[in-house]
Amino acid sequence: MYEAFWREVGDRAATVIRGWQAMSYFSDPDALCWFLEPEFEREVRRLHRVVGNAVVDGYHLVVGTGATQLYQAAMYALSSPARGDKPVPVVSPAPYYSSYPPQTDLQLSGFYRWAGDASTFAGGECIELVCSPNNPDGAVRESVMSSAAGAKPIHDLVYYWPQYTPITGRAAHDIMLFTVSKITGHAGTRLGWALVKDREVAKKMVYFVDRSTIGVSKDSQLRATKILSVVSDAYEAPPAGDGGAAVPRLFDFARRRMEERWRTLRATVAASGAFSLPEEIAGYCDFNKQTVAACPAFAWLRCEKEGVEDCAEFLAGHKIVARGGKQFGGDARCVRINMLDRDQVFDMLVQRLSAIN
Amino acid sequence: MYEAFWREVGDRAATVIRGWQAMSYFSDPDALCWFLEPEFEREVRRLHRVVGNAVVDGYHLVVGTGATQLYQAAMYALSSPARGDKPVPVVSPAPYYSSYPPQTDLQLSGFYRWAGDASTFAGGECIELVCSPNNPDGAVRESVMSSAAGAKPIHDLVYYWPQYTPITGRAAHDIMLFTVSKITGHAGTRLGWALVKDREVAKKMVYFVDRSTIGVSKDSQLRATKILSVVSDAYEAPPAGDGGAAVPRLFDFARRRMEERWRTLRATVAASGAFSLPEEIAGYCDFNKQTVAACPAFAWLRCEKEGVEDCAEFLAGHKIVARGGKQFGGDARCVRINMLDRDQVFDMLVQRLSAIN
Repeated sequence: MYEAFWREVGDRAATVIRGWQAMSYFSDPDALCWFLEPEFEREVRRLHRVVGNAVVDGYHLVVGTGATQLYQAAMYALSSPARGDKPVPVVSPAPYYSSYPPQTDLQLSGFYRWAGDASTFAGGECIELVCSPNNPDGAVRESVMSSAAGAKPIHDLVYYWPQYTPITGRAAHDIMLFTVSKITGHAGTRLGWALVKDREVAKKMVYFVDRSTIGVSKDSQLRATKILSVVSDAYEAPPAGDGGAAVPRLFDFARRRMEERWRTLRATVAASGAFSLPEEIAGYCDFNKQTVAACPAFAWLRCEKEGVEDCAEFLAGHKIVARGGKQFGGDARCVRINMLDRDQVFDMLVQRLSAIN
Repeated sequence: MYEAFWREVGDRAATVIRGWQAMSYFSDPDALCWFLEPEFEREVRRLHRVVGNAVVDGYHLVVGTGATQLYQAAMYALSSPARGDKPVPVVSPAPYYSSYPPQTDLQLSGFYRWAGDASTFAGGECIELVCSPNNPDGAVRESVMSSAAGAKPIHDLVYYWPQYTPITGRAAHDIMLFTVSKITGHAGTRLGWALVKDREVAKKMVYFVDRSTIGVSKDSQLRATKILSVVSDAYEAPPAGDGGAAVPRLFDFARRRMEERWRTLRATVAASGAFSLPEEIAGYCDFNKQTVAACPAFAWLRCEKEGVEDCAEFLAGHKIVARGGKQFGGDARCVRINMLDRDQVFDMLVQRLSAIN
């Protein structure tokens, strides 16, 4: 979906890396996160200030190979040193991101272990993954476990950007995860960051990234620096009339596209009668300076047809591939529809959905 | 050390990445390693053919965020599915790379667990890390554990390149690890690869890299493609006289530098009388087409002074920072000296060493 935008931006978003640049493991040997490129850090902090979606002052920035590595680093940081043979339970309310269970238990870690749906968890010490807006259903979430009882939240805010949801304030949680992929579409760059309040937690996360991959690709950081700077420039550039060509604005572009797609999908679903979607929510967006509808990156589509118990299976019969609700610890009558795919794929989906009644 | 080389190469080694390039998670959705850029794979296979240090035909190529991630992926692949509560022991003969123990036990994995020096291991099922030439002492190694008894080797061949050691044949082990960092000096690119004989093992390694970082930076792969192509071009380019400027040759450059440094270090050590080094080994190099000396990336320096039990501590007193032998499971009278540092750092080291007697 974002490719068209970057083609429009053109050469201004190109990155050039000379043969002798960025050869070292180190970006700044004296920094807490010694493999974090200072220019990248500057652009990340700038972007959060431009958008107003997270507090950055007083936070440590830890870079990772995507949010995926960082959430493992965060779980490690919150659960180490290990206490005997009792890994800390990791929970999230269903429906939760389907990759949480296999990623959490990839190594059968002695530090932490997936414990499933937070709503069926007995309570006590745990790590709670709070994804907001939530993957798969787009819900705006807050931590549901009790910190007094020993729950420690990790806030997965990778979709908390103005194209997906109203920006209702600057988030200021203990650990907040973001990724370039969901902001600009550059998934292949494999670059995320964590804003971390506590210095010791940040240090443990840095240790984890050091030991698991000895830091993070400098090439990705150089490229993301350029990409993010183009995004911020468009909102901070001098007003038109100074002779320079207008820079395309990413969040405006993406919001327009998301609104179109959601309008199309809602109309299709309403016409078919066989499905339902979560109700549209709207709110005042501090960034857009107006009330806007939430346009989640995924649609949590529920099949309302009698006799259909497994929506993914039912849709597969109509040549629609979608991840079934059970994989998210949720209702099998639901599926997750990707709203960020290429135009061609999205158009095909709508066409096939509209043929079902 | 390699920076000077890449400055000499100049713009031919520059990588340009447009804003809309390489945005997807996928490089080739149908490939076994779906996040491996086909051009990068081509350059890797080409380089091994040019150098003749490893068999590539019939091998699967798995890309990773440095050899570090790949050796974890390989341990995972060789030990999964987990058998009850018995992680597979991981061993390596001392002195072994000091990062093996903390990297292996980073997660206190239920699949595998560090079990120390292979020479004190009781035997039976295990994973053996075979580093050759060995970090820290440069020794040429072969697997020492019995495969009949259930030992499975992982060959860490990141230093098996002609600047460090005579290329005595094309290696053809089950799992062989390499990294851009030790070939061209681009450590910041965080890019390695594994040549894997068995398809099922390769698939499990791909699964591991998918779950831990959802693949590998495309930017790093694009850049490494360019870098490796420049290296191979210099050895396969049409002979001079065709009008084009000669392309600098990486392995020649690096071998010259390594030989100089080793000559300097050996002379310094011989003059001081306080230290010793492993004996120089030489052999016929199929790549250089002549007998050459081994020039390991590290020098395993032993203090011969009476009363000095801890060489690292002793050297620290002379303002020389070196990792002590105990961290490698070896003799505290030894330290590991980095032979790949910048000229200034290496010159300072030699100067300070020569002042000790």
